[in-house]
Amino acid sequence: MIEYKGKSYICALDLGFEMIRGKWKAVILCHLHDGPKRFLELQRITCGVSQKVLSESLKQLESDKIITKHIYAEVPPKVEYLLTEKGQELVPALKIIEQWSKKQFSDLLDK
Amino acid sequence: MIEYKGKSYICALDLGFEMIRGKWKAVILCHLHDGPKRFLELQRITCGVSQKVLSESLKQLESDKIITKHIYAEVPPKVEYLLTEKGQELVPALKIIEQWSKKQFSDLLDK
Repeated sequence: MIEYKGKSYICALDLGFEMIRGKWKAVILCHLHDGPKRFLELQRITCGVSQKVLSESLKQLESDKIITKHIYAEVPPKVEYLLTEKGQELVPALKIIEQWSKKQFSDLLDK
Repeated sequence: MIEYKGKSYICALDLGFEMIRGKWKAVILCHLHDGPKRFLELQRITCGVSQKVLSESLKQLESDKIITKHIYAEVPPKVEYLLTEKGQELVPALKIIEQWSKKQFSDLLDK
């Protein structure tokens, strides 16, 4: 058993997968791979998910060092979220799942 | 929006990821990649997760055609779970996440 942040995991995959299991996390990472995004842009991408839910997902990804925040010294302050190097390394896995899904659900996606 | 089994998804990744989001699914798929397994073997691998939870995960994976069941004509009947071709195609993504986790959490995993 592996202990991490008060929870137990049975193997490396179980623990690693936990980092991206949350509903919006994979989608957020894929979009940040295209470039840094502001909170409102991410909210638009996730089709208007509540501020609380998106904020919680971003906080967890930040705490797990998968994304980071860039705060520009401007007035009003501008904040952008971006992938860390650690986050970048997860993108190939997400791209495989995305391609797999496009292939499996081509009938639904073509609509 | 993509509609699938009564739920809405914002993109192919969102939908594809849903197929493996459930707590034990990724771990089950990775182990079935090593070869077909019986229910009790999977229960041992998942460190004694309840019969109900494991059974539910397997049913969902079967319904999504990611795994299948082979029932041997024996008495008592022998049942084995195995990956479908569709399931096999997800394994490379899971292997990336597993390797990523081993790298990120090497300090925890070496214990």
